[in-house]
Amino acid sequence: MKVSALGEFGLIDLLAEMISGAQDKSAVSYRKLIIGIGDDAAAWKGDATTQLITTDSLFQDVHFRLSTTSWHELGWKALAVNLSDIAAMGGVPMYAVVSLALPPDTEVDDVRALYQGMIELAQRFGVAIVGGDTYRAPLVSITVTVLGSAGGKNGKMLTRSAARSGEKIAVTGALGASAAGMEMLDKKLELDAESGGQLRRAFLQPWPRVAEGQRLVALGVKTAIDISDGLISDLKHICDSSGVGARVEMERIPIAPAVRTHFSDRALELATTGGEDYELLFTASDDVIDRVKAKLSCPVTVIGEVVAEKPGSVVMVDGHGKLLSLAKTGWEHFKGMK
Amino acid sequence: MKVSALGEFGLIDLLAEMISGAQDKSAVSYRKLIIGIGDDAAAWKGDATTQLITTDSLFQDVHFRLSTTSWHELGWKALAVNLSDIAAMGGVPMYAVVSLALPPDTEVDDVRALYQGMIELAQRFGVAIVGGDTYRAPLVSITVTVLGSAGGKNGKMLTRSAARSGEKIAVTGALGASAAGMEMLDKKLELDAESGGQLRRAFLQPWPRVAEGQRLVALGVKTAIDISDGLISDLKHICDSSGVGARVEMERIPIAPAVRTHFSDRALELATTGGEDYELLFTASDDVIDRVKAKLSCPVTVIGEVVAEKPGSVVMVDGHGKLLSLAKTGWEHFKGMK
Repeated sequence: MKVSALGEFGLIDLLAEMISGAQDKSAVSYRKLIIGIGDDAAAWKGDATTQLITTDSLFQDVHFRLSTTSWHELGWKALAVNLSDIAAMGGVPMYAVVSLALPPDTEVDDVRALYQGMIELAQRFGVAIVGGDTYRAPLVSITVTVLGSAGGKNGKMLTRSAARSGEKIAVTGALGASAAGMEMLDKKLELDAESGGQLRRAFLQPWPRVAEGQRLVALGVKTAIDISDGLISDLKHICDSSGVGARVEMERIPIAPAVRTHFSDRALELATTGGEDYELLFTASDDVIDRVKAKLSCPVTVIGEVVAEKPGSVVMVDGHGKLLSLAKTGWEHFKGMK
Repeated sequence: MKVSALGEFGLIDLLAEMISGAQDKSAVSYRKLIIGIGDDAAAWKGDATTQLITTDSLFQDVHFRLSTTSWHELGWKALAVNLSDIAAMGGVPMYAVVSLALPPDTEVDDVRALYQGMIELAQRFGVAIVGGDTYRAPLVSITVTVLGSAGGKNGKMLTRSAARSGEKIAVTGALGASAAGMEMLDKKLELDAESGGQLRRAFLQPWPRVAEGQRLVALGVKTAIDISDGLISDLKHICDSSGVGARVEMERIPIAPAVRTHFSDRALELATTGGEDYELLFTASDDVIDRVKAKLSCPVTVIGEVVAEKPGSVVMVDGHGKLLSLAKTGWEHFKGMK
């Protein structure tokens, strides 16, 4: 059945039923919920801790293609990219609202799959989907807004603006797989099943580092961002906000193994500029980073350091400390340098 | 200049500057704000009162046409429809986030006008715009999410589900002007300047009844909805949620004067099914409604009563108590009835 046959109110009823069936009554979000879907606004009992809000959209043929993305993956990713923003603040995600534009000939089963993808991820993090807006449009577009609480005591958070020179720069996980996954799908590259699956998941079902963000705050980290634009761009955001510079050592950047194997020429470029890895990039003192490495279950790699020179700029150096610059063909030594 | 020339980060900087320049430091929202635009999420000091969230989108050629809507009006309306949802809960709007899809050839001045429209309205209600997402897309789409607090003591709110039989049904203001305005613009009808201006404003610059919603809660009203789908549809939402029926007296419905004058044949139809009037539709006892009439500065009209019969259904009667039904040609007596 098409959504046009079900009608707007029929669709809302169906989605409300799916979401209601997926409620986890033990989650704090649901215990505090007063009104979910079905009124002019959702309502819950507030609390005095610091509150967080973020919003992010996926628009057809801009952020995804229906030819290469399943509806389930689309739902997952639309929520995941927002949870990642809450993770980058060290927060606890609580409530989500969803605005969804759908062409009238969309299959109801596809919308169901989209919500199933969102609900699966929401359940992992105790997030209550409490409302939204669903309407016909010529293209699919999904905007998710997530509200959360600061995870740290006394409202402590991770921000972009607390980096200080002398701190180390570190990153969770490995980079480049998401951009490689997008390229694999766009160019219909045929990789072995394991690599192909890893790259596809990295691009379409990223795992937001929510637990890791909360752990970072608890361990004394003050500065973080999630990698959405790309390592260099996102590190520049930290530098701009903190009024510091950054020096990254090329050889230390953790590159996802499948990227090294299948995109060897461009592995470093994908890992530094590809974006959408949704790993956490953070800065902290050596002591704090040692504690982080001991306590986090995911890989944590130091890739450089915060410097006082050239506020707002990120420089990349090779193993000999020589400066590199990003050209069309990837990272290379500055012209004239040997 | 086009937004493509300015770039994503340039555009974000421009919007952040506009919003920052419009801050009203005396507003509660700004006094509690910890981080606005420019980090992974916005943050503010929470409180223990009941919290509200709502989201609503305007999509090009679905909800508006650029040929008949100014960018300033578009920004205003995108926020107004969300504030109206908070008003319908009797709440105090506090924070807004904005997700904005823009074609690359959009003029930067147009985006500036759009934000100016939003900011103007936000300032009237002490709402802080604290974040968002701006990206290129083939069509303009704007999704606003608003967070608020319940306005009543002890978290009291207006909901759709508290209507009881015997209560009167009342509505603020007058109806039909928004739908008439849309039709006037779509069909390029030329009305006198005053009527034309009223209808255009009703459709593109609706005034959310935020103060009135808060007043309703304080005066003991428990049930309300804002008129977005249309009087009959929205009254049916109340009936469905409350498990009651509704009986509306056709002759009591307040119709906007310009609609009576220029759309005389279809005035009642526009007022009952046109939608987007963003007036408050509510139910309460006679006593409470008397107090509301005395205390609200806008017109309040009783249009019918809540009944126990036929839960979920709305019936319309003429001045003699005879049932009417809605046909293609407007409201008419049921066939076979005299």
